[in-house]
Amino acid sequence: MARQVAIIGGGSSGLCAIKACLDEGLEPVCFERSRDIGGLWRFEEQPEEGRASIYRSVIINTSKEMMCFSDFPIPDDFPNYMHHSKIMEYFRMYARRFDLLRHVRFGTSVCRVSKRPDFAATGRWEVVTESEGKQESAVFDAVLVCTGHHTDAHLPLHAFPGIEKFKGRYLHSRDYKDPQDFKDKRVVVIGIGNSGSDLAVEISQTAKQVFLSTRRGAWILNRVGQQGYPIDIVFTTRLKALLKQLLTSSMASDFTERQLNMRFDHAHYGLKPKHRTLQTLPTPHPTVNDDLPNRIISGRVRVKPNVQEFTETSAIFEDGTREDIDAVIFATGYSFSFPFLEDYVKVVENQVSLYKYVFPVDLEKPTLAFIGYVQPLGAIMPISELQCRWATRVFKGLSTLPPRHDMEADIKHKKEEMAKYVASRRHTIQVDYIPYMDELACQLGVKPNLPLLFLTDPPLALEVLLGPCTPYQYRLRGPGAWRGARAAILTQRQRVVQPLQTRHVEENTSVSVLPLLRKLAVAMAIFAIIFVLL
Amino acid sequence: MARQVAIIGGGSSGLCAIKACLDEGLEPVCFERSRDIGGLWRFEEQPEEGRASIYRSVIINTSKEMMCFSDFPIPDDFPNYMHHSKIMEYFRMYARRFDLLRHVRFGTSVCRVSKRPDFAATGRWEVVTESEGKQESAVFDAVLVCTGHHTDAHLPLHAFPGIEKFKGRYLHSRDYKDPQDFKDKRVVVIGIGNSGSDLAVEISQTAKQVFLSTRRGAWILNRVGQQGYPIDIVFTTRLKALLKQLLTSSMASDFTERQLNMRFDHAHYGLKPKHRTLQTLPTPHPTVNDDLPNRIISGRVRVKPNVQEFTETSAIFEDGTREDIDAVIFATGYSFSFPFLEDYVKVVENQVSLYKYVFPVDLEKPTLAFIGYVQPLGAIMPISELQCRWATRVFKGLSTLPPRHDMEADIKHKKEEMAKYVASRRHTIQVDYIPYMDELACQLGVKPNLPLLFLTDPPLALEVLLGPCTPYQYRLRGPGAWRGARAAILTQRQRVVQPLQTRHVEENTSVSVLPLLRKLAVAMAIFAIIFVLL
Repeated sequence: MARQVAIIGGGSSGLCAIKACLDEGLEPVCFERSRDIGGLWRFEEQPEEGRASIYRSVIINTSKEMMCFSDFPIPDDFPNYMHHSKIMEYFRMYARRFDLLRHVRFGTSVCRVSKRPDFAATGRWEVVTESEGKQESAVFDAVLVCTGHHTDAHLPLHAFPGIEKFKGRYLHSRDYKDPQDFKDKRVVVIGIGNSGSDLAVEISQTAKQVFLSTRRGAWILNRVGQQGYPIDIVFTTRLKALLKQLLTSSMASDFTERQLNMRFDHAHYGLKPKHRTLQTLPTPHPTVNDDLPNRIISGRVRVKPNVQEFTETSAIFEDGTREDIDAVIFATGYSFSFPFLEDYVKVVENQVSLYKYVFPVDLEKPTLAFIGYVQPLGAIMPISELQCRWATRVFKGLSTLPPRHDMEADIKHKKEEMAKYVASRRHTIQVDYIPYMDELACQLGVKPNLPLLFLTDPPLALEVLLGPCTPYQYRLRGPGAWRGARAAILTQRQRVVQPLQTRHVEENTSVSVLPLLRKLAVAMAIFAIIFVLL
Repeated sequence: MARQVAIIGGGSSGLCAIKACLDEGLEPVCFERSRDIGGLWRFEEQPEEGRASIYRSVIINTSKEMMCFSDFPIPDDFPNYMHHSKIMEYFRMYARRFDLLRHVRFGTSVCRVSKRPDFAATGRWEVVTESEGKQESAVFDAVLVCTGHHTDAHLPLHAFPGIEKFKGRYLHSRDYKDPQDFKDKRVVVIGIGNSGSDLAVEISQTAKQVFLSTRRGAWILNRVGQQGYPIDIVFTTRLKALLKQLLTSSMASDFTERQLNMRFDHAHYGLKPKHRTLQTLPTPHPTVNDDLPNRIISGRVRVKPNVQEFTETSAIFEDGTREDIDAVIFATGYSFSFPFLEDYVKVVENQVSLYKYVFPVDLEKPTLAFIGYVQPLGAIMPISELQCRWATRVFKGLSTLPPRHDMEADIKHKKEEMAKYVASRRHTIQVDYIPYMDELACQLGVKPNLPLLFLTDPPLALEVLLGPCTPYQYRLRGPGAWRGARAAILTQRQRVVQPLQTRHVEENTSVSVLPLLRKLAVAMAIFAIIFVLL
C-alpha cells in the first residue's frame, strides 16, 4: 500500500492534493518551484518562467459557492466573484485550517520522475528535485502531478505572416499587466477566449482603439445572471442537467442561443460563432465577459476576423480590411507539458491519454495521477479536489481501475465525442461539469443518492436537485463525508446574497412563497417523469 | 420683428441655436467664453472655471439615433454610444455643414444682459461682453441663453460633518480625470447619479476598494438593451408612451421594476430606492451604468448608505459602519446660475420659473429664451434644437405665447406634478422625453400627424409609432420640414446595426418576417383602441 506521495506543484490542485493525502492517512510532500502557494492565482509584477501569469485586475469567472473546496465554504462576507487577492486569502485560510504548509517544500523544482527498477511490483517512483542549485533524489509510493494546464504560453507566430516585420510591440497575454502601457495606442488583441476578451475590454479604457480579432467568434456569458445571481449558480443545477439529457443537442442549443441572444444579438455584434452552444458533452467553451457588448456598442472595441498578415505598421484582416496598429497581444492560450515525466506521458496537440483525465493507462501500477487537466464550464478547484480524493483511494488500493482495455475504450469514446465538435486548443480537455463530477463521484462512492434523499430529507433533496450543484454535494456520504455538508447546502443561497447587502433596503418579502411552491411542483413533476423513464 | 440674436454659449445648445436662427433668417452672434465649441463635451486635461468637466473615458449614455440633431443624422459608421472625441467630431461636422463657426465669437464672455430703456416696446437687450480684457456693448433684438445646466459644481460640504478634519484627498467629480490617481487607495464616492456610478466603476479597476455611498439608492439601466439594441431605442417609442398612458402609474412602475430586477435584483444589491420607476411625468431619473452590478458582485464596489460623518482617516456611515479611506469624491452634481442676468431670472434651489422650461413669464416681450435647462430621460440635444426652433419663431412673432396667467398656471401645474415624486436636485428640471417633445412640437406645428400618416404612408407611420421616437420625426412637416426626414426614419435601424458589424457572420434571415407581421397586427389593434378612445 502506498504511503509517501510526491505532489508536484503548490497551486490550488496541489493544496487540495495535500489535504486529500492527509485525509487518507498518506504522507504527502509537495514540491513547489516558487516561494509561495497559489500557482496561477498569485499575482506578480513580473511573469515567472513555467507559471501562468495573471494581470493586476483579474477577477475569477466562477462564483464562490461553485469554486470552493467541498468541506471549506468561502466566508460569508467574501464577494461572489473574487479578485485574485481574495482568492489567495481563501487559499491561505484553507492551508492554515488544515495545516497544509508544513508539507510543502518551497523553492524546489522537480527535475525528473522515473520508475524505480521494482516498479512493476511496488509502483514506486524516484523523484529528483533541485533546490538552491543542489539536486536531491527520493523515492515515493505515488505521484500526483498538479502543475496545471496554464504553464507554457502558446504563441503561434508562424500562423501570422509578416509579424517579424512588424515594428510595433507584440506580446503574449501572459506578459500583460496594466492598461496604462497601451494608453492612446491602437491595439489588436488576437483570440476571444476569456483572456482575450478581458484584455480587449480593459485596454479599451485607455487605448485609442482596440480590435478584437477572432477566427471563430464566441458565445458570451455575463458573470451576472438572471436577477443578479452568479451565472454559474443559475445554470449549474441537476435539474437543468437532467433536462438537457431529455432534449436533443440541437434543441438545447436553440434554447441557450436564444437566451444568449436576448442579452445581445451575437450576429449583430459580429460575434456569432459557427459552432453551437452547450451541446451535451463536450461543451464548446463560451467566453465569460461582462462588459464586452458595452465596449462594442460604444465602438471602443471593434470585432474583426482573423489577421491574415502583418505589415510594418498595420494588420490586414481576412476580410481585406487594414488597420494601422501600434501593438498586438496574442491571447492565444497556454499549452501544458511534463518535461520531468517525458518518458511516460506524451502530450500531443494539447492532448494526453488519461483515464477520466486522471490516470495513464499503460503503467503496471496506478500510482501516477494527473490533477486538474480538464477545462470545465465551471470551476476547476472542486474537480481537482474530487480527482485527488479518487486518486488517493486508488493509490491505497481501496478503489481499483478497470482493465486497460476498458480504460482505453473509455478514452477513445470520449475523444470521438469531442471530435464531433469544433477543434480548438482549449476544447481538447473540456468536460461537462455535473456529468464529469458525478462520474468521478461514482468511482469514489460519494454521488448523492437523490431518490433516497427525497424520501429521507426532502428539503435537502430539493436544494440538491434545484439549487446549484455545489461541491458540498459530494461530501454528503461515502468516504470523506463531512458533517457540515448538509448545512452548507441549505445555507448556500444566503452566502450568495449576504456579501451584496452592504446597504440596508426594505424588501417585499411576500413574493418568495410562490416561486418556492412552483419550484416544488416542477421538481415533483420532473422527478416523477424520471422515475418512470428509469 | 427681431433680427439680431445674441446666443450665450457655444456648446451643443448654442450650435443648434445658431442653426435655428439662420433657418429663420435671423442674424445670430454666439458668444463663447473658451476658444472652441462643444461645451461640456470638449475634454480638457484641466477643468475650466464655469464649464462642466468630463473625464478621459466618458461615453455618452444616449444613443446616436436619439441624440442627433434632427436634420443631420450621425454618420452610419459612428458607434451607437459615442466617446466624447466622437461627439466632438460630430459637432464639428455639423458646424462645418451649416457654416456655423463664422457666427461664433470665441474667447468672449458675457458680463451682463439688461433690458434697453425701450424694452417694453422693442423687447431689445443690451449685452455687455468682455474679450481679452476689453469690454464691449451691443444691442440685440433677442437673447438665447445656452450656458447649460452643468456649470457650477455642487459641493455640499456642510452636509458632511468632519470633512474639514479629513486628512485624505477630497474632490468634486468635475475634478476627476483618471483612475490612476486612486491606485491601491480606498475611496468613497458620494452619489449614485451617472457620474457617481461611472466613477465608482472606473476607479474600482485600480483602487483597493471603492465604497459607493447613496442616500436613496437608484434604479440602474444598462446601455445595452434587449437583444443588444441601445436601451433608449428600445424604450423611447410612441407605442410605449401610449401604453404608459393607458396604465396606472403603479402598474407601469411594477412592470418596469420587474424588468430591471430581472437583470439584477436591486434589493439584493443594496440599490433598491424608495421611489418607484418611470411614473408618468416626471420620471425619477434612473442611472445608466453598464458595469455596476458586475463590480458589486465581485466586491470591488461596495454599496453604502449616506456618510454620517468623516474622521481624520475614515468615513462613518448612517448604519454605523466605519471604513478607513484615503479619498472622497463628491459626485453631487451641478447647479446652474445666470450671474449675467441676475436682475431678471432667479434660480432658487436649482429651479427657475420658465414657461415650458424656455420662456420667463414676466417680461413685456418674449425676447429671452433659455435653451437646454431640462433633464430628460433621453438626449438633451434634440430638445435644445426643438426649443430653439420654437423660440426663434416666437422671437419673429410667428408663434405667440399665451397670456401670463395661463403660462403661470402651466408652470404651477408642472411643479405640483413634480412635487409628488422624490425631491432631488437633478429632478427639478426633469421632463418625460416624448410628451415634452410633442408639447414643443405642438407649439411649433411640427408634431407628426399619426392618423394621417397611417392613411397616406403606412410604412412610415408604422416606424413612427413602433420605432424609436427619433428627432427626425419633428422634421416631417411644418416649419423647418426636411426632405430627408422620411428616409432618415426608414433607415434608422440600419444605422444602429451597421457600426456593430465589423466582422461578417452568416445570419439566419428567415426569422424577420414574422415579427414584422406581428408588429403590424399589434400596431393596428392599438391604433384601433386609441381611435375608439379619442
